[in-house]
Amino acid sequence: MTTVSRQWVLKARPTGMVGPEHFELREETLPEPGDGELLVRTLLLSLDPANRAWMAPTPTYKAPVMPGDVMHGFALGEVVRSNAAGFAPGDLVDGMIGWRNHAVVPAADMVRRDRRHRPEHLMGVLGVTGLTAYFGLLDIGQPKSGETVLVSAAAGAVGSIVGQIAKLKGCRVVGTAGGSEKCAWLTREMGFDAAVDYKAGNVRRALREACPDGVDVYFDNAGGEVLNVALFLMNTRGRIVCCGNVSQYNAETIAPGPAAVPGLLVVKRLRMEGFIVLDYEDRRAEAEAVLAGWLADGSLKSAEDIVEGLDQAPAALAGLFAGRNRGKLLIRVA
Amino acid sequence: MTTVSRQWVLKARPTGMVGPEHFELREETLPEPGDGELLVRTLLLSLDPANRAWMAPTPTYKAPVMPGDVMHGFALGEVVRSNAAGFAPGDLVDGMIGWRNHAVVPAADMVRRDRRHRPEHLMGVLGVTGLTAYFGLLDIGQPKSGETVLVSAAAGAVGSIVGQIAKLKGCRVVGTAGGSEKCAWLTREMGFDAAVDYKAGNVRRALREACPDGVDVYFDNAGGEVLNVALFLMNTRGRIVCCGNVSQYNAETIAPGPAAVPGLLVVKRLRMEGFIVLDYEDRRAEAEAVLAGWLADGSLKSAEDIVEGLDQAPAALAGLFAGRNRGKLLIRVA
Repeated sequence: MTTVSRQWVLKARPTGMVGPEHFELREETLPEPGDGELLVRTLLLSLDPANRAWMAPTPTYKAPVMPGDVMHGFALGEVVRSNAAGFAPGDLVDGMIGWRNHAVVPAADMVRRDRRHRPEHLMGVLGVTGLTAYFGLLDIGQPKSGETVLVSAAAGAVGSIVGQIAKLKGCRVVGTAGGSEKCAWLTREMGFDAAVDYKAGNVRRALREACPDGVDVYFDNAGGEVLNVALFLMNTRGRIVCCGNVSQYNAETIAPGPAAVPGLLVVKRLRMEGFIVLDYEDRRAEAEAVLAGWLADGSLKSAEDIVEGLDQAPAALAGLFAGRNRGKLLIRVA
Repeated sequence: MTTVSRQWVLKARPTGMVGPEHFELREETLPEPGDGELLVRTLLLSLDPANRAWMAPTPTYKAPVMPGDVMHGFALGEVVRSNAAGFAPGDLVDGMIGWRNHAVVPAADMVRRDRRHRPEHLMGVLGVTGLTAYFGLLDIGQPKSGETVLVSAAAGAVGSIVGQIAKLKGCRVVGTAGGSEKCAWLTREMGFDAAVDYKAGNVRRALREACPDGVDVYFDNAGGEVLNVALFLMNTRGRIVCCGNVSQYNAETIAPGPAAVPGLLVVKRLRMEGFIVLDYEDRRAEAEAVLAGWLADGSLKSAEDIVEGLDQAPAALAGLFAGRNRGKLLIRVA
């Protein structure tokens, strides 16, 4: 029984803003899964700012996507046929399945997921997104009750969870987002103490007013101007969690770095630290249990933005950088 | 018995390179030490890159020097008259005595030092300089045997000690310095494995060749170009110890920050952390004992550059930024 996979292939590397013109939809007849392999059917495809960084010619923490490759993407799938011990049809798995509705993948690259959770949660609060927020904020940021936590791209998938966890830890939480609507959503729905619209101008003044006691932890998803300003607002021994650099992923030229580095790091004894959630794989169960508990008792809200159909993936990715989504952006593939 | 103090006063704030024209020598008749105060005679005055940072109008980790103030400086002094319990004439003390040959200071601001050590060592390897190297490298940098440690301003007071400690910990040690003579001194006298002359051009290529296995710990005294390049050479989970920014202290305009921040911090999971040695006051005895042991058994060399006479202080500070000294720059005042 042959399976035909519909898949988005990278046609040309974007040099600036990514858009549908950089992708091409193709069909491929898949081979039978070989030894240790699985045939999976994609259920939900995760779209993340990092996807754009993977399209740059220079390697990041993984090999870059090459023109002609199926676009890389993290996804939730269901096992259709298994040729690997310990996996059976109907099992839920996640991993780097890519932008396609079916794939043959090595079972060793997949993580089995618990069917008792909603698929949207498995890809969001209980998936890589939630783990990124959890380990980045708590392990790297180490917020203490009463401290001020600033989060950029706060209306995004990771940012909206970071803010909520920081509130659960007793912090004052301030977010930045693009547009007054998202800012209102952060304070009204997501429990942020204040939100600053970085598109409204005078970010420095607005952030200073929103953080009257300075900033102790800055969870940086954005880089760029917000990072620049945050460095000046940091309190002595503050921590900057370097999670992403979304303001720069589509830039055609390399922006200068923040002028306060390294001078202010010394004067204020600041720590800036980058991390990749994949490094925390061995502590996944611990974080998942805590996050699932918060979700179950209502102290953590899951915000999802679900787009129907694999065909929409390129446009939805462009929309992510245009600031169109709130919370976790997912493509429902099946 | 009145004491007249000769002292260097900041005449005008430098906007670019600091020089003798920014200082003025004055005499002041000192009052008798009041309750809790000491009259001290300055023996050795420490000249450090940070002195220039203190002259900027913006506060650092301490209040800036104001025009009309006696220039701030760390120094070793001998108690002449004491009006404070626990201090007696002849005691050695160090602290922020300033650029003057006599001073009345609060005893609470002074630290008593052990007369059994050479005064030059008390101001260098066994003083703030040695403690900066020790805590910065070991606490913040956490080098492991076999790792590569890169140090900028390696022929300077802190850098030359950092390199030696890193060697004692089993690391491959590479330094940057200005000029081939200093570089030769680092490898021949100070035990560095390699040294790169940052004035010779193509620093990126020279550092890449000197660090074939990349860099695990970068001890940054310099900022600027060496920091830029180091970020690209860092290995995954590398640590950058932000100790100083000497390339920028005399700059008339604020230079852009390193373009690799924050992008490469994320991708390589780097940690950049600033520190001020004053924060380690409670662990001073621990470090001093270790450093004194290394000095006594010959595994640590003290490099000093001693200039005779308080009159020479302004010219010697300018010389420090012109790269004229090797090791610890001290003014012998008495």
